[in-house]
Amino acid sequence: MGLADSRALAFQRRRGIVARMTRPLISLAAALALALPVSAQEEPQGAPSPNEIVAEAPAGEWVRIPAEDLLVMTLAPDAQGNAREVVIQLMPAPFSQGWVENIRTLARAGWYDDITVNRVQDNYVVQWGDPNYDNPEAEGEAKPLPEGLRVMEESEYEAPRVMSSGTRNDLDPSRDDRFLDAYGLGAFLKGWPMVIKGNSHWPVHCYGMVGVGRGMSPDTGSGAELYTVIGHAPRHLDRNIALVGRVIEGMEHLSSLPRGHGDLGFYAAYEADKRTPILSVRVASDLPEADPASSSEAVGQDTRPAFEFLSTESETFARYADARANRRDPFFIVPAGGADICNIPVPVRRVGG
Amino acid sequence: MGLADSRALAFQRRRGIVARMTRPLISLAAALALALPVSAQEEPQGAPSPNEIVAEAPAGEWVRIPAEDLLVMTLAPDAQGNAREVVIQLMPAPFSQGWVENIRTLARAGWYDDITVNRVQDNYVVQWGDPNYDNPEAEGEAKPLPEGLRVMEESEYEAPRVMSSGTRNDLDPSRDDRFLDAYGLGAFLKGWPMVIKGNSHWPVHCYGMVGVGRGMSPDTGSGAELYTVIGHAPRHLDRNIALVGRVIEGMEHLSSLPRGHGDLGFYAAYEADKRTPILSVRVASDLPEADPASSSEAVGQDTRPAFEFLSTESETFARYADARANRRDPFFIVPAGGADICNIPVPVRRVGG
Repeated sequence: MGLADSRALAFQRRRGIVARMTRPLISLAAALALALPVSAQEEPQGAPSPNEIVAEAPAGEWVRIPAEDLLVMTLAPDAQGNAREVVIQLMPAPFSQGWVENIRTLARAGWYDDITVNRVQDNYVVQWGDPNYDNPEAEGEAKPLPEGLRVMEESEYEAPRVMSSGTRNDLDPSRDDRFLDAYGLGAFLKGWPMVIKGNSHWPVHCYGMVGVGRGMSPDTGSGAELYTVIGHAPRHLDRNIALVGRVIEGMEHLSSLPRGHGDLGFYAAYEADKRTPILSVRVASDLPEADPASSSEAVGQDTRPAFEFLSTESETFARYADARANRRDPFFIVPAGGADICNIPVPVRRVGG
Repeated sequence: MGLADSRALAFQRRRGIVARMTRPLISLAAALALALPVSAQEEPQGAPSPNEIVAEAPAGEWVRIPAEDLLVMTLAPDAQGNAREVVIQLMPAPFSQGWVENIRTLARAGWYDDITVNRVQDNYVVQWGDPNYDNPEAEGEAKPLPEGLRVMEESEYEAPRVMSSGTRNDLDPSRDDRFLDAYGLGAFLKGWPMVIKGNSHWPVHCYGMVGVGRGMSPDTGSGAELYTVIGHAPRHLDRNIALVGRVIEGMEHLSSLPRGHGDLGFYAAYEADKRTPILSVRVASDLPEADPASSSEAVGQDTRPAFEFLSTESETFARYADARANRRDPFFIVPAGGADICNIPVPVRRVGG
């Protein structure tokens, strides 16, 4: 369905023309979905939900994420002894590559092993790093950083925009999936939410995005201190801090951590025992590939995971974004008629290794 | 500072004109704030942060929330035995008053006592209600609802807009604190984030807002099943579900709960023990006022709490909103030049009872 069709339908629905005609009788599935403030994603009748649209995407629209761009972060098991693993996708060129390379260097040096989650500020960020770095109440010495880390410039918070003149490329403002909001003109590029302005573009602080903690300007951070967004998109951080990736699996292990009660959500001295240990952070390409002949129990956190994202240049992504902006699945009465760029999370899925 | 001035300043900062002149030397406070992806809210130099602006608001700009509009929800203590109390502010007229009255009726009937949190979906909602209602795996009977609940119409998801012609009222589109985004024209009204369209306006699903679970249309929910937003604002729910209030204290007790692994983030049967019991929900006006002569230990969860919000029609709120949109405190390099309405949380504070 094209955007024009969908807008006409949205208009009719707003007027109550279509909604009442297409509204299904309450089915068993609908009855099971009662009392949900959501999309009734299991609901088979009516227009497909965004997730249903994604489920029908042809295989060729999914893009494999290079193992070099995946970090596997293993937290200490939870209080019940359950394993906690977080997978982060690092940003591709042209964005933040100096910090991304530093992060690989830190991971390969084992520097992240045995650091901790030090800060959990509600509706803002979870942050992890060396608990003894820059901590007036530190119990030990700060951990020395490995050799070879790059020092990045503030100008690298954004990247030059390279135009392919005359082609309908992903920086062409005529694309359907553009979003103009209080922060500028949004677009999806190579699977990432962006703002485009003049000859520049930069990534956006959506839920789950990962950034690099820093001190006061002109410090830009090394990558030793990282954070992820656990609330409403803090877009005022865009272009003020380097974004380097996003959490694509295990987000709940960070977002559900106990909040800190010191300044800015850092754990105060009296609650230092709430700091969650990070046992290891590995670049996925350094992990052994899972042996397809082995039993499923052998496929665990020590083997290389594999993920794909739905191409943001694909036909299905355009339909998905349109459906996020104009919900037509049966639970909904009035489509919003739009969506902000952080309300269209890019679909990512785990695949066989 | 007016908006024109602030825009000029923002422009100069983007050009690097002002930022370098006003950038302070690193102070002790700044050193303590190192490695934070935030506003360095403790940082005294440079332009004030949004929180510093709010801290200077004159007493007359704060509005006392009626005790009849406060709900005190007491969860079971956490695993370490710590008390968990959540305070919800109910919406004032003209919004959602039928559901709000139902919620008071349910609270006063003790109906909410011993219900549970049944759903925690990451980056979406926490939902609480009767675990035996509409649950195919229920172990007991659904709890009967009290008499006297109103049945609301879908048309009441929004409210008519009453114009005070010729006055600079809070529905006047010339106000500085208006926000045009993918979802329409936003504004703050009586302390709440709204969208205004034609002769109608409706509240917005920001982080922490509380809404009424419902079944398939035309069901609109009674108020027995409630949820709050724990992620990026799900604005597609606006005008599709009744919003009735917001969490103003204790949000972390809901947002940090373990995520559910059943459909839509409901706790699956195997993890039913993760459901957090809700011991009681009380309308604050039904609680005894704290005795100012008593010792501080006596002021606990069984006495009436009191809260104020910063008037969204006040001069300070306009300055605060502008500072949220254009951060000038020392940590920031490039002001965003705008803010979406959910990135300007209305300041609320607890006051002596």
